Amino acid sequence: MDVVSFGETMIRLSPPNNLCLEQTHQLDVNVGGSELNVAVGVSRLGLESRWVSRLPNNSLGRMIRNKAREQGVDTSHIVWSDTDRCGLYFVEYGASPRSSSVLYDRADSAISKIKRGDVDWNKALAGARVFFVSGITPALSDSAAEVTMDALQAAKKAGCEVVCDLNYRARLWTGEKAREVQTPMMEYVDILSTTEEDTERVFGITAENYSEVAKILVDKFGFKAVTITLRTNLTVLTNKWTAICYADGKVYDDREYFLELVDRVGGGDNYTGGFIYGYLTTGDWEKAVQYGNANSALKQTIPGDLNWATLADVEKLVKGGSGLRIAR
Amino acid sequence: MDVVSFGETMIRLSPPNNLCLEQTHQLDVNVGGSELNVAVGVSRLGLESRWVSRLPNNSLGRMIRNKAREQGVDTSHIVWSDTDRCGLYFVEYGASPRSSSVLYDRADSAISKIKRGDVDWNKALAGARVFFVSGITPALSDSAAEVTMDALQAAKKAGCEVVCDLNYRARLWTGEKAREVQTPMMEYVDILSTTEEDTERVFGITAENYSEVAKILVDKFGFKAVTITLRTNLTVLTNKWTAICYADGKVYDDREYFLELVDRVGGGDNYTGGFIYGYLTTGDWEKAVQYGNANSALKQTIPGDLNWATLADVEKLVKGGSGLRIAR
Amino acid sequence: MDVVSFGETMIRLSPPNNLCLEQTHQLDVNVGGSELNVAVGVSRLGLESRWVSRLPNNSLGRMIRNKAREQGVDTSHIVWSDTDRCGLYFVEYGASPRSSSVLYDRADSAISKIKRGDVDWNKALAGARVFFVSGITPALSDSAAEVTMDALQAAKKAGCEVVCDLNYRARLWTGEKAREVQTPMMEYVDILSTTEEDTERVFGITAENYSEVAKILVDKFGFKAVTITLRTNLTVLTNKWTAICYADGKVYDDREYFLELVDRVGGGDNYTGGFIYGYLTTGDWEKAVQYGNANSALKQTIPGDLNWATLADVEKLVKGGSGLRIAR
Amino acid sequence: MDVVSFGETMIRLSPPNNLCLEQTHQLDVNVGGSELNVAVGVSRLGLESRWVSRLPNNSLGRMIRNKAREQGVDTSHIVWSDTDRCGLYFVEYGASPRSSSVLYDRADSAISKIKRGDVDWNKALAGARVFFVSGITPALSDSAAEVTMDALQAAKKAGCEVVCDLNYRARLWTGEKAREVQTPMMEYVDILSTTEEDTERVFGITAENYSEVAKILVDKFGFKAVTITLRTNLTVLTNKWTAICYADGKVYDDREYFLELVDRVGGGDNYTGGFIYGYLTTGDWEKAVQYGNANSALKQTIPGDLNWATLADVEKLVKGGSGLRIAR
Amino acid sequence: MDVVSFGETMIRLSPPNNLCLEQTHQLDVNVGGSELNVAVGVSRLGLESRWVSRLPNNSLGRMIRNKAREQGVDTSHIVWSDTDRCGLYFVEYGASPRSSSVLYDRADSAISKIKRGDVDWNKALAGARVFFVSGITPALSDSAAEVTMDALQAAKKAGCEVVCDLNYRARLWTGEKAREVQTPMMEYVDILSTTEEDTERVFGITAENYSEVAKILVDKFGFKAVTITLRTNLTVLTNKWTAICYADGKVYDDREYFLELVDRVGGGDNYTGGFIYGYLTTGDWEKAVQYGNANSALKQTIPGDLNWATLADVEKLVKGGSGLRIAR
Amino acid sequence: MDVVSFGETMIRLSPPNNLCLEQTHQLDVNVGGSELNVAVGVSRLGLESRWVSRLPNNSLGRMIRNKAREQGVDTSHIVWSDTDRCGLYFVEYGASPRSSSVLYDRADSAISKIKRGDVDWNKALAGARVFFVSGITPALSDSAAEVTMDALQAAKKAGCEVVCDLNYRARLWTGEKAREVQTPMMEYVDILSTTEEDTERVFGITAENYSEVAKILVDKFGFKAVTITLRTNLTVLTNKWTAICYADGKVYDDREYFLELVDRVGGGDNYTGGFIYGYLTTGDWEKAVQYGNANSALKQTIPGDLNWATLADVEKLVKGGSGLRIAR
Repeated sequence: MDVVSFGETMIRLSPPNNLCLEQTHQLDVNVGGSELNVAVGVSRLGLESRWVSRLPNNSLGRMIRNKAREQGVDTSHIVWSDTDRCGLYFVEYGASPRSSSVLYDRADSAISKIKRGDVDWNKALAGARVFFVSGITPALSDSAAEVTMDALQAAKKAGCEVVCDLNYRARLWTGEKAREVQTPMMEYVDILSTTEEDTERVFGITAENYSEVAKILVDKFGFKAVTITLRTNLTVLTNKWTAICYADGKVYDDREYFLELVDRVGGGDNYTGGFIYGYLTTGDWEKAVQYGNANSALKQTIPGDLNWATLADVEKLVKGGSGLRIAR
Repeated sequence: MDVVSFGETMIRLSPPNNLCLEQTHQLDVNVGGSELNVAVGVSRLGLESRWVSRLPNNSLGRMIRNKAREQGVDTSHIVWSDTDRCGLYFVEYGASPRSSSVLYDRADSAISKIKRGDVDWNKALAGARVFFVSGITPALSDSAAEVTMDALQAAKKAGCEVVCDLNYRARLWTGEKAREVQTPMMEYVDILSTTEEDTERVFGITAENYSEVAKILVDKFGFKAVTITLRTNLTVLTNKWTAICYADGKVYDDREYFLELVDRVGGGDNYTGGFIYGYLTTGDWEKAVQYGNANSALKQTIPGDLNWATLADVEKLVKGGSGLRIAR
Repeated sequence: MDVVSFGETMIRLSPPNNLCLEQTHQLDVNVGGSELNVAVGVSRLGLESRWVSRLPNNSLGRMIRNKAREQGVDTSHIVWSDTDRCGLYFVEYGASPRSSSVLYDRADSAISKIKRGDVDWNKALAGARVFFVSGITPALSDSAAEVTMDALQAAKKAGCEVVCDLNYRARLWTGEKAREVQTPMMEYVDILSTTEEDTERVFGITAENYSEVAKILVDKFGFKAVTITLRTNLTVLTNKWTAICYADGKVYDDREYFLELVDRVGGGDNYTGGFIYGYLTTGDWEKAVQYGNANSALKQTIPGDLNWATLADVEKLVKGGSGLRIAR
Repeated sequence: MDVVSFGETMIRLSPPNNLCLEQTHQLDVNVGGSELNVAVGVSRLGLESRWVSRLPNNSLGRMIRNKAREQGVDTSHIVWSDTDRCGLYFVEYGASPRSSSVLYDRADSAISKIKRGDVDWNKALAGARVFFVSGITPALSDSAAEVTMDALQAAKKAGCEVVCDLNYRARLWTGEKAREVQTPMMEYVDILSTTEEDTERVFGITAENYSEVAKILVDKFGFKAVTITLRTNLTVLTNKWTAICYADGKVYDDREYFLELVDRVGGGDNYTGGFIYGYLTTGDWEKAVQYGNANSALKQTIPGDLNWATLADVEKLVKGGSGLRIAR
Repeated sequence: MDVVSFGETMIRLSPPNNLCLEQTHQLDVNVGGSELNVAVGVSRLGLESRWVSRLPNNSLGRMIRNKAREQGVDTSHIVWSDTDRCGLYFVEYGASPRSSSVLYDRADSAISKIKRGDVDWNKALAGARVFFVSGITPALSDSAAEVTMDALQAAKKAGCEVVCDLNYRARLWTGEKAREVQTPMMEYVDILSTTEEDTERVFGITAENYSEVAKILVDKFGFKAVTITLRTNLTVLTNKWTAICYADGKVYDDREYFLELVDRVGGGDNYTGGFIYGYLTTGDWEKAVQYGNANSALKQTIPGDLNWATLADVEKLVKGGSGLRIAR
Repeated sequence: MDVVSFGETMIRLSPPNNLCLEQTHQLDVNVGGSELNVAVGVSRLGLESRWVSRLPNNSLGRMIRNKAREQGVDTSHIVWSDTDRCGLYFVEYGASPRSSSVLYDRADSAISKIKRGDVDWNKALAGARVFFVSGITPALSDSAAEVTMDALQAAKKAGCEVVCDLNYRARLWTGEKAREVQTPMMEYVDILSTTEEDTERVFGITAENYSEVAKILVDKFGFKAVTITLRTNLTVLTNKWTAICYADGKVYDDREYFLELVDRVGGGDNYTGGFIYGYLTTGDWEKAVQYGNANSALKQTIPGDLNWATLADVEKLVKGGSGLRIAR
């Protein structure tokens, strides 16, 4: 087992063809959530991954489990509930100047009612090299935060490296609450994957540029590495994307991708997934950033939160390819 | 205003083409709920109706409001919430021997948090001839039950006749709780529209046949009339349907319809809608049953909870038509 | 050239999934019209056919031309208009007890404005063995009736046998007008393909059974043969279907098909198409009826007016096959 | 009642996924027409509106009525016809260098046969603050032009301000006829919403820039205000959009929006709707232009003629927002 | 590991909405093949299963692998090819009297080029209780037949019980070839799941009824049990279905199911899957037949080869449930 | 007959909405292949064309034949096979930086098994002005190459001008094999339509610019003209496109089109189709290039290989039009 993650995956419903949610008569069905997105990301590229969560034992919960399995992610440590509901969210695709938007309906989802002891973390993490969790999981409920802390401690005990994405969600908690809950968690984190914006909202850290932010984070929390993604919103349908990593006192960067966005949701998570893959397979921070960027850039051209790119697709970009020509 | 109703309408999501919910990649979007179904039923036939509820002020809540308006139902007394969620349900269409099924996700919906005083019932019921509510509304929460009682009392004060459908939902409460809450409500009810099965589950009443059940109900609660629908499940996709009405000491019945089911959900509500239409426009219990049956039979051939038949379609059946020939 | 036909083809728009037209958000696009349906029917079975009409030179007119060509029908004698509109019709699929229905929007279509001389009938009919026209064409307008008469006369001159289907349309004209216009046309008709109902509405002929009706028609108009189709509407979605032919003083009949209807529109036309095929290739009235029934029965299980069955499919039924087993 | 409008709404059929009309097998169904587009525009933003028209009493006519009601527009003054047809149009979406295009099939629609006296304008306009009509309505037929003139006069009598959009349609009439019919109407118009191009084609007015055109129009016709929209066609799928208003001797302008076009049809009408909203709620010409531009820009990213943006969406742009970030 | 199977799975393409393949513009994409169908069947019911095959390493091959994983089937022993193609088949849904039909395009698929030694059967079968293979696998190619024989021998060595379905495919080989290749395989088979028809075509065995056929097979080949399914084709869209098992000298039978067919393909395989489940979990032949029938009946109401019913759904029927009522 | 072409057309399957092939649940069905694309291109513009091939006599083969006929292409010389398969290919639409891609499944298709004598080239080419073939046809198999050579010789004998597109496909053969087989064919070619890239890969010719390449080709092979297309890949979804022709010692060029790509496949073939149309109708090389570019540019905005633009659409661009404005 290479990577274990813990968090919520929701049923994701999106109107087709740029329709507004209010006007639509059909919804495309996908699933998504930061920690599963990461687990799928590394699984697609060839590593073994496991995703831990709590789901209702109904058609929607099983659909989420199935989609994880479809991508090769181990689901044997999911906790099943006979009574709770499945979190949902609605994604509406915009076009300039109409923003894309997300409407969450996740309150009281099964994972928000997870309790200490529901997961046997020693088993779930046995043999894992990396444990990943985002700041969303502890934001779901107090008990979810407790289980997150248990998982972090078990991960350290199991010898995992811990990767964390702050993933601040203003709908779930305030910046103050996020800081209060997450600060003690940072002690267990080895690699932080984040954005300048989240860093400011959670830890109040700002600086002249994002390399500087990364350095401050490393100094403050003692992380082994901090990687920060940078999205430039050219228009609603075209973006630029790149990232850096600060580690060993150095900044590692990469080319900037021009993106024709099909679905930007999951872009950050797939950066992290690619980064973990690159890190685990090469041990080279620069490669990690390159794999993260390529994996994220491809995902943003694919409908749904989950990535469907292959290792070959990613490596074509890592080697400098452009995708401009048709592949026959 | 001819008819006012009060209750929950949910977003209704159904997989196309007989797919199981667990396997689907698309969902058709409709809206439905007993009291709106009735309000639409009478509106389509030409009466004025209003539907009162509480909805979240987001795309989903607005969609429900819009669909009511689309069918000519007045929505000016809806109470809007900036924070609560919208109830949802999932409908899966079966085929013999796989049952059709419904999965509810309605806990903590906006209407379950309605409070006494949220609706100005004097205004909402001003000039109305009929007030309709089903047993689902008081089952949603204690405060919804209180508001239901307020509405019943205001309806009586406003001179409305009250029509009620027991509509027992085992997912929402027990039969005991249903009886305890609904028994005092029956004092305000003039016409009960129900099934033998619900009568047994809520009031423990059984008898040799459904005319007898109706008579017992009239005797026990002093209703002006009781109308009972009878569905015979031939196969999952074909049913027989009819109904009777007991009033003035007599039983009124009607032809039995053979149904090729497209979507049976909303069949009972559209019976009640047609019945109210027939009753209000003719004052004749037999006509009421005939309009109820025809309206219900047509609805069960139409996708979605809401009816799209016209008065002309209904009257063609009431006059004995069969629908067997193509109409050019 | 085996068969030439003359008449209107319209764009045909139908809501998917049993939706009512009033409620639909999508329409499936097909084309259809009695005379093209017949021309396609014989072309699919292997004969050469041509369809003559007048169409607007816009995307809709070209679509109709294309669909005829797609099925191998010659369209080189279509008359093109730069200004007129394309006839349309809407098909709504019912289920018991909701009838299927057709809404026409064909007034002022290009063919209704066809004028004598627009078609060079000598060329259009050169070498043809059969000319087919239905009673719809002369009903479209006075000038269309004139052109129909020109075509009938040219057909006789060219040595064609003339096949006619009364196809009475109450939306286009009265029974009286139909009789007045069509009676002189009957002189040119060799084979009449019709129903008991149309015979009564147009010629006022009734009799005890449909063999008798056929005999009366032969006696009255001197037809070589009369073939009459019989549909038994079991339910909206299941029918029985058969036909007879009266010729040479004898009645030829065939098995009765049980139909699970997918789309009954075009059933009569495809009977005629199959009948003409059987007649032209075998000269045997019984075979003609058998090919007609099999072709019609298959068409009624296929979406759209046009047939997509193959000669092999038809002959499987003609030889007594049932279709009950899956064909691997 | 804040705004009343009068004009045609058609069924609008468009091939999905950039297909050509000639090649499509499905059509998306919407409704649209300048005056309903405006009525929906102001209704979505929170004002009360009514749309007056004449429709056939069939599924298509009812669909149009329903879609108006769905958006909160009052339809109680629609005139119903038992015989006439519903106007249709087909929209084909292009991509550079293929132009988007519209094919109309609106001849002899129900509204073209409207007659003086069909609408009780005193009732229809009672209490209204604004009456809106475009130059399309009088172009439909002579009697439609007469009814338009009646409406204008009644509007003045009722104390409405009259807003007019020239909306010149070369398929319906010549520039000369348009001028002849519309010039006497201008006497009743308070605010003209138009483009440089239409002004030239109808009134032959040209000038160095569009502020100058507006000034000439005000001088010539005595309008209270003239507002002119400016679309810059960068590519078929990307445009720039802005507008100005000339009033009180001054020019009011606004930011220019970059548009990623989803559906440009209805862009002008939704400008007018937003402009009327801004004018009626603030009395400030600059705000009127800002609301008009934001409302139009959003609409052009939404499929269909009708707007589905909310007041909050519009005000986000009016306050300078960009839509570039995803809204969670 | 409870069950291991070995065979081909193809991409399965089917026109929606009863369209003919020749006329369709869209194809629904599923995957299917006898041995995967069985593996999914037992996995859905709660056992562990593994499916072994050879697939091309392209999007189509990966899709098949993914769909197996989605349903919880282990795919770790699939052999991957960089050059070969993926088998395909097309399913067309009929309606009386048009037969449903299957068009195969499976020649030279990756599995037909499998070679001895490609699969490590000792590992693949380690710990398995049942090995399942159908007569399709050895029919694919000589080398596939050799690998099948290796698997059978390894299965015996590993202590598996072997279940076999004759599944005769006339497109792949003759009855003579089938007999010649399969007769030596029968020695390894413990339980045969078949039909009267396949028994006759492969082994030339006929008898008065299917119990007798089963007895003859047991006597001839020494099977532990023979189970025979019986489908009665009422119409193309409605069937009856049941099965018997002959074991221990006794005949075990079950209720007959009335089926409203949504998709009959995979019905036999899902019988076998349910039978294996019932046999492994209860050791009771009667229960095995009951689980087989219920599992098969449900599958035939679900689109696609693979089953999506749950153990609860199956057990509802096994306990005598009907599915006639809607499940709320 | 103006143009005859010879080659393979495949069923073309593409996931909708930018989905990856591996993730899709539906496929859009089209047909395509270089030589049919060219035949359709010239037919749409008004010339007569015929396409010669070999197809399986099943639903897929008939679909291809039908689609050719739908566009007016003569199919009377197709050779039908009762046993072979139909070639398929899968098109996946990308977005920057994900490339669009094509997966072929064409091995052993019916045309690859064509044999000398299957086509009566004297009849098939009788009266034709141009014979077109691409380098794909001889690459399909040795016998296909032999038949290609027969066709070329017969074309010369029949007085046709021969147009050839190198269309090098690395999946089918090596550059060396391509050169070896195609070099002797060049003797029969009058006009070569190609790209710089294919020229280099097949003939090893490179030069400073594409005019120079054309000149070298003319000098080397004695062509009457060489036309070379130039695509500039700006992004995956936007391209620039133009072409030149070298003939009579001169270079003819044209404007460069900016393309918003809907479907770039078939762009080169439709250039050739437009070029042949321009050449045959005007005899002017410059016009030929202009028609080729306009035809190709329009096609690349239309889904599918085949063009649906009209002569009017093409001539609007040839005359300098832009498509930027909506066409009403």
